[in-house]
Amino acid sequence: MLKGIGASQGYGIGKAVLIKDINLDYSKVRYSDAATEKERLKNAADEFIKETQTLCESLKESAGSKEAEILEGHIMMLNDPFMLSQMNDNIDNGFVAEKAVDTVCNMFIDMFSATDDELTNQRASDVKDIKDSLLKILLGVETVDISNVAAGSVLVAKDFTPSMTSQINSENVSAIVTEVGGVTSHSAILARAMGIPAVLSVIDATKKISDGQDIIADGFLGEVITDPSTQEFDSYRAKQSDYIKQKDSLKAYIGKETITADGVKKAVYANIGRPEDVQNVLQNGAEGIGLFRTEFLFMDRNTEPTEEEQFEAYSTVARAMNGQEVIIRTLDIGGDKDIPYLKIEKEENPFLGHRAIRYCLDNRELFKKQIRAILRAAVYGYIKIMLPLITCIDEVNEAKAVIKECEAELAESGTEYKSVPVGIMVETPSAVFISDLLAQEVEFFSIGTNDLTGYTMAVDRGNSKVSKLYDAMQPSVLRAIEITIKSAKKAGIQVGMCGEAAADPRLIPKLIEWGLDEFSVTPSSILQTRKIICEYKA
Amino acid sequence: MLKGIGASQGYGIGKAVLIKDINLDYSKVRYSDAATEKERLKNAADEFIKETQTLCESLKESAGSKEAEILEGHIMMLNDPFMLSQMNDNIDNGFVAEKAVDTVCNMFIDMFSATDDELTNQRASDVKDIKDSLLKILLGVETVDISNVAAGSVLVAKDFTPSMTSQINSENVSAIVTEVGGVTSHSAILARAMGIPAVLSVIDATKKISDGQDIIADGFLGEVITDPSTQEFDSYRAKQSDYIKQKDSLKAYIGKETITADGVKKAVYANIGRPEDVQNVLQNGAEGIGLFRTEFLFMDRNTEPTEEEQFEAYSTVARAMNGQEVIIRTLDIGGDKDIPYLKIEKEENPFLGHRAIRYCLDNRELFKKQIRAILRAAVYGYIKIMLPLITCIDEVNEAKAVIKECEAELAESGTEYKSVPVGIMVETPSAVFISDLLAQEVEFFSIGTNDLTGYTMAVDRGNSKVSKLYDAMQPSVLRAIEITIKSAKKAGIQVGMCGEAAADPRLIPKLIEWGLDEFSVTPSSILQTRKIICEYKA
Repeated sequence: MLKGIGASQGYGIGKAVLIKDINLDYSKVRYSDAATEKERLKNAADEFIKETQTLCESLKESAGSKEAEILEGHIMMLNDPFMLSQMNDNIDNGFVAEKAVDTVCNMFIDMFSATDDELTNQRASDVKDIKDSLLKILLGVETVDISNVAAGSVLVAKDFTPSMTSQINSENVSAIVTEVGGVTSHSAILARAMGIPAVLSVIDATKKISDGQDIIADGFLGEVITDPSTQEFDSYRAKQSDYIKQKDSLKAYIGKETITADGVKKAVYANIGRPEDVQNVLQNGAEGIGLFRTEFLFMDRNTEPTEEEQFEAYSTVARAMNGQEVIIRTLDIGGDKDIPYLKIEKEENPFLGHRAIRYCLDNRELFKKQIRAILRAAVYGYIKIMLPLITCIDEVNEAKAVIKECEAELAESGTEYKSVPVGIMVETPSAVFISDLLAQEVEFFSIGTNDLTGYTMAVDRGNSKVSKLYDAMQPSVLRAIEITIKSAKKAGIQVGMCGEAAADPRLIPKLIEWGLDEFSVTPSSILQTRKIICEYKA
Repeated sequence: MLKGIGASQGYGIGKAVLIKDINLDYSKVRYSDAATEKERLKNAADEFIKETQTLCESLKESAGSKEAEILEGHIMMLNDPFMLSQMNDNIDNGFVAEKAVDTVCNMFIDMFSATDDELTNQRASDVKDIKDSLLKILLGVETVDISNVAAGSVLVAKDFTPSMTSQINSENVSAIVTEVGGVTSHSAILARAMGIPAVLSVIDATKKISDGQDIIADGFLGEVITDPSTQEFDSYRAKQSDYIKQKDSLKAYIGKETITADGVKKAVYANIGRPEDVQNVLQNGAEGIGLFRTEFLFMDRNTEPTEEEQFEAYSTVARAMNGQEVIIRTLDIGGDKDIPYLKIEKEENPFLGHRAIRYCLDNRELFKKQIRAILRAAVYGYIKIMLPLITCIDEVNEAKAVIKECEAELAESGTEYKSVPVGIMVETPSAVFISDLLAQEVEFFSIGTNDLTGYTMAVDRGNSKVSKLYDAMQPSVLRAIEITIKSAKKAGIQVGMCGEAAADPRLIPKLIEWGLDEFSVTPSSILQTRKIICEYKA
């Protein structure tokens, strides 16, 4: 049994198809003159962009627009004037087009690989993908045709580049196995989007697995079984059939009202990170957006987003949700996120530092730009504002004053806007201890169990030495949740939960019992959560 | 008005006495031969040690043994074989003794200055003190005689070396002002021990203040007023007289029972960091040790302390307290403290990391060594064990099992020991939320308001950008304290407080009202705290 990371749920049973590295040796290519090499490079780049655009279209159908964006990112990267001009400079120095591509791309790969940040590391694999594609085009090498594998194939490769993944036919591919990549790698994202089980980071997978070998990939446990016994085959076929049955049974909950077996109305909302996620939310029939993270607008760019850009994003979501609630969380960043243009200083304990509402209240112009964009977008749907990391009443009052100020400014300039309900994340122990007082000041609560668990237990969940203490089922965390829900109910305000615990089958019955109104979960958990709630009876 | 850091309380009013740097130029000294230079160096070192020992004796009388230790440290440092042998090597290379001293000391100074750690930085100033003393002896330069200044002098210097400070006659010196140093510098420690007001880190103090100028130093606010107006003189004389009166009035509380005006018995305990602190505790008449931090035993050394060394320290305190309670907190360290031989990894969020009880439970042998030392020391007094950073019942049970194991081992080997009561620090929100359950498992609580405030508010108190949120008077923190005290009272166990809030006049009335039994404060706050309690009436 080979061990890896389960990056996309499900069981894949079938025959291994090894995707071998193709030969991209260009040592025999001879330099003619700079103009010719530049022309070759330009043609290859054009061809690459055309191919990639085609892949994009097919990916949009098979996996969704979010995934296609990865490839659109490749086009943008190659269109970066710096990248191509560096390559042309190398050609001027006597390099053939292939060597120019190789050299410049490797420089970017080294740069992106040099950090500890997983997202930046992913960029390295993007550039590798671009490099390989360009070299293939320049050398006229045929690309491996993944789209034509036999039904039941388990694809095994060192890594899947996004362009490779985009060719996968999910009808025939029963799982993918790679030697590199984590749960946030492009391969993982795409596999989940296409519903293909995936086991990544299996050391030496392409050496330990042979072409044509019988193989089982367990996307839950992150395990790969080669040459399984009859018993193993039977056991996994049963598991697979159960899993599919369970998935199918959930389809009945699309569009169904969320109401307990004893008739209490609840709501299942969704957590999203980008406007594109709404599609997935609507497909799964969530009753609203319980958490719209706005960090995406600020990340992976060199300047602060304008009020217009933000208005565009918020109003798009408001419109798409067609009158259903959209709870927008104001910017939740801090010293642990690297957003160079915001010049956030590195802190000793970033989780206990200058972040979220603290940062926004101290950076008024940035905060006001976001608030104005939200108030303007509110005209197009049912938007609420949610303030993160609240610890005391002063912060709520200060934020509400800023919102009033923005309303006055918009009114003065004659800009269309709408006042919106203001609520808070309850995610610090402080907010729990004074939840009765806070409930008098705001129109709703949303319990953020991820941070609340961390602060209550004094644990950084990312620190493997103490993560065993990080558990929302800890009696103390359960009590904090119960106190918060009861404070909200007593004050008569809506109370939701947008941490991971809202989808936890162990916790849902307790949450219903205590009176939680709204369960905001990742889109893929909407139906499962609704099912558990609908089956609940006191 | 010049701004600095108030490092020792009180008001100093008088005439400035500038301590100028003396001339230690040795460029005219000629090299004779290595043997002669080495002989000069040896004589100077011997002389230095003799002088320093004399200063030590006088310091023990004027400031206490703890402060004398600083100078004893100098002797030890010079006796370090490495330091002297490096100097002799330099002499072999043709340096005169002065240059050998200068070179080697500067190397150490650079090394110690290169870190961000304040304690290590202090070492640099120790070496500077040694260097200057040796050069003075070698050059035959007369030392400035601080001991003979006129009454009412305010000493102003770039920095006070410990040897300079030790010559200060507290009768004549009404304050000290320096350009460098913080509240933990030796100057600050010595000034507090001698009861001399001190304002440190006043930029360009020796340039902005002239010899003989009228001057007022405010050791509370860290302010220096030069050429004060008559009005300012009068105002500060009044403040000074009030302060002295208040200090005198506290003397009545030495040895007095801590009992509220309406007859409820309480106790004022002390927090200590080293066995030597007991002297100060006894002088101020505390009724016990509420927090004996044991980190000191592990810091500033290259190897783990042995069980014997620990036994020695714990039993010394137990004996000195003569049957009064001594609550020993087990090792409370983490990724924020640099103890090289423990090889603790640097963490992203050390306050939420692998520290205190978490570290000890994962490093059993180290933990057991400490527990055995405590159990053995318990024979000599009234010792209790206190576990830090408890978040759940499992941790308590695990620690209690370790203690039982140690008892069995000691019994088996026939070593004398005594079972002791086991209690916990309540310093995480988690412990507060389940304080009723924890109260069933332990024999006492001690509320650690410093960490409790930080975790409750999700604030790193050391981060100036968010420290305004760090306040034990926050309604949420007060509620956490109230919940904890009430849980303890309901279960009938003793409840104390060893955070800084236990000495806060704003908080003490509430703590009494809620039922706190024991107030553990820094030795200098014992009498003030007792006074407030004795004056309290419901």
